[in-house]
Amino acid sequence: MGSTAKLSPFAPRTLARLPAIEGVRFATAEAGIRYKGRTDVLLAVFDHGTVAAGVLTQSKTCSAPVVHCRANLHRNCNHEARALVVNSGNANAFTGQRGTHAVNLTIDSTLAAVDTNIRHQIYVASTGVIGEPLDPAKFTGLLAGMAKSAQPDRFEAAARAIMTTDTYPKLATRSVEIGGVTVTLNGFCKGAGMIAPDMATMLCFMFTDAAIDHAVLQQLVTRHAETTFNCMTVDGDTSTSDTCLLFATGASAKRGQKRITDIADPHLTAFNIALHDLMRELAIQVAKDGEGLSKFVTFEVSGAENWKAARTIARACANSPILKTAIAGEDPNWGRVVMAVGKSGEAADRDQLSIWFGPHQVARCGERAPNYEEKTVASYMKNPEITIRIDVAVGTGSATVWTCDLTHDYVSINADYRS
Amino acid sequence: MGSTAKLSPFAPRTLARLPAIEGVRFATAEAGIRYKGRTDVLLAVFDHGTVAAGVLTQSKTCSAPVVHCRANLHRNCNHEARALVVNSGNANAFTGQRGTHAVNLTIDSTLAAVDTNIRHQIYVASTGVIGEPLDPAKFTGLLAGMAKSAQPDRFEAAARAIMTTDTYPKLATRSVEIGGVTVTLNGFCKGAGMIAPDMATMLCFMFTDAAIDHAVLQQLVTRHAETTFNCMTVDGDTSTSDTCLLFATGASAKRGQKRITDIADPHLTAFNIALHDLMRELAIQVAKDGEGLSKFVTFEVSGAENWKAARTIARACANSPILKTAIAGEDPNWGRVVMAVGKSGEAADRDQLSIWFGPHQVARCGERAPNYEEKTVASYMKNPEITIRIDVAVGTGSATVWTCDLTHDYVSINADYRS
Repeated sequence: MGSTAKLSPFAPRTLARLPAIEGVRFATAEAGIRYKGRTDVLLAVFDHGTVAAGVLTQSKTCSAPVVHCRANLHRNCNHEARALVVNSGNANAFTGQRGTHAVNLTIDSTLAAVDTNIRHQIYVASTGVIGEPLDPAKFTGLLAGMAKSAQPDRFEAAARAIMTTDTYPKLATRSVEIGGVTVTLNGFCKGAGMIAPDMATMLCFMFTDAAIDHAVLQQLVTRHAETTFNCMTVDGDTSTSDTCLLFATGASAKRGQKRITDIADPHLTAFNIALHDLMRELAIQVAKDGEGLSKFVTFEVSGAENWKAARTIARACANSPILKTAIAGEDPNWGRVVMAVGKSGEAADRDQLSIWFGPHQVARCGERAPNYEEKTVASYMKNPEITIRIDVAVGTGSATVWTCDLTHDYVSINADYRS
Repeated sequence: MGSTAKLSPFAPRTLARLPAIEGVRFATAEAGIRYKGRTDVLLAVFDHGTVAAGVLTQSKTCSAPVVHCRANLHRNCNHEARALVVNSGNANAFTGQRGTHAVNLTIDSTLAAVDTNIRHQIYVASTGVIGEPLDPAKFTGLLAGMAKSAQPDRFEAAARAIMTTDTYPKLATRSVEIGGVTVTLNGFCKGAGMIAPDMATMLCFMFTDAAIDHAVLQQLVTRHAETTFNCMTVDGDTSTSDTCLLFATGASAKRGQKRITDIADPHLTAFNIALHDLMRELAIQVAKDGEGLSKFVTFEVSGAENWKAARTIARACANSPILKTAIAGEDPNWGRVVMAVGKSGEAADRDQLSIWFGPHQVARCGERAPNYEEKTVASYMKNPEITIRIDVAVGTGSATVWTCDLTHDYVSINADYRS
């Protein structure tokens, strides 16, 4: 599982190097939960004063860790976070009382390891197989040692420990000023299959030294998830475990950053833009490592009734097996784009619809473009990155959705994921 | 396209033999629209007094023939039908003014061939590639000769002429009594890919000699489409061309059948049941010939809030690429069923959820069943027909959805459909 998959053609040649963030330290370990010879447990330890914000899957069958994190975030308190524990190889989803018990045992050990007794200061996440009981004893004994050895400059190791069928770790960093003080924003995430986030992605963790109140961070993360992770899909299958968390240590206050307490504060602008940008980059990295992909595909929809309608149309395209398969076959089968627009249920003027594959207009005003040349467009389809633009001619709403193609390798990977 | 595809493992050993229906005659021809060496045009000619009813795709980018048939059915008139013309190889969808013109030319030639001048008595349907202009001159010259040579006992030939990537013709027949008079109900259809009917299926044509008013037939077809074709999916992709029509010649009135004019007429009961049964059989035949399939899969959902919620949950399972791929790999990955239930958005009690694969309970009360044995369930997965039952434990709604698995062959067929 994972280890035999071919490297994504979009794997970066060199990984982004993420600088340390004051107030955050990481440790990883091999607990042998499912994988052999690789790390599968991550512990992040946060200094006092760190606050958390985040969004979680809307799945009705969400995992036990998601239930715990949601309770943490919904508490009416200061949302201080002291640690994050993540395991890969087992999602601890649909595991009933045993699942809740596994989360509680993990929290117990973590409380001791980071020397606190406040349970909602501990965040947990699990990813991997659904429905198999997770045995936390495989790693709870390791947490105390991990807390002691945790180091700030371990972002790449942290990103590797949470991978499942991902073929490369997904890392991104930004640096911006808040009121003249430079703050850092780092993030990493994992994706691969069962990816169609609904309010969050599989697992994404972000960290900053900025001093910003929980309520402000929560609004930012919620808003940006809509146009980043929620505009990305691999296979239209929403996970039980989607978790996207941002931890802000506030350490930059020591360097003079005035704490942000209001989302309308003009000093927040650069950070706001950088956070959106970071989340978009991570979402695109997930799509570029979709299971078995050979092409990265962008759907840009314009002329819809509103933003949401545009996203629904773009998602209908991005989740259409018959269209994604055509793209894998380098077939400019734009008739399948017409089908996907039609099935989305959103308003579209069939007789004014226009479609472009890259720079080539293939449809105009509801029929094949007069200067359409199959050969030219077929040649465009050989590119590893395909952009399909659709104007549905009823309004001013527009949206962009990122995805990948549907290949033989997707079938191979998922036909024997557990064997 | 189509001709090289492997025969579905569910292809019937012997095709159903459909008896002639008084008042209906068929002719087929090779027009070379796209395919070579096979028929691709069907003409059905109806005696005076035949009425039509039907349902059509809800796609916002529906084809020109669908627009024409919808206008016919929505007219406030007697809904008499004199002919049906179907071509395969080109869907005449997203073809703009030229598409409408092609429909009009087809109707002109058909009017002359069947000696009438009432345009809305002619029904048309097209299936095949989307977006390519259809040249009706390839077959309009054949229609007069076809009308002359049309014969009643040509159901199999008719079903073959409308195939695209189907690997076998789909035929079904029923015989029931209405007030002591035996009437016949025949139908055939085509499916294969881009199949997730929304109010109708790709192309389905049914014929009866029963004497029943249009309004009654229309209610029956609409109602039964919901629990038959609309409970079947191959890939979740709704076509631009879905058309399901029923033609009733009324010839059995000559044998004493009293015309049915009221849906509450108790003499209608047997016909009502037979029509539902026929439509379900045809829908299942479509799923059993889904592109590239190796397994036929039934999802039975119970305990939902209502019937519609149950169907939504069953469809979420039936359209999940990651679950369908696991089934292709004979992997009893029931965690993916949990995921699909969760992403459906419908109410489900995660902690009371139960799942069965065939006779084997795999999940009970929100976690793995205590006596679950992977080996036993893996062995069940080797069956060609798989039934997955899910109880979501919140209400009394239940629904059944039929589908197939997602295989390497689906990818192969659709990666080069047009080449």
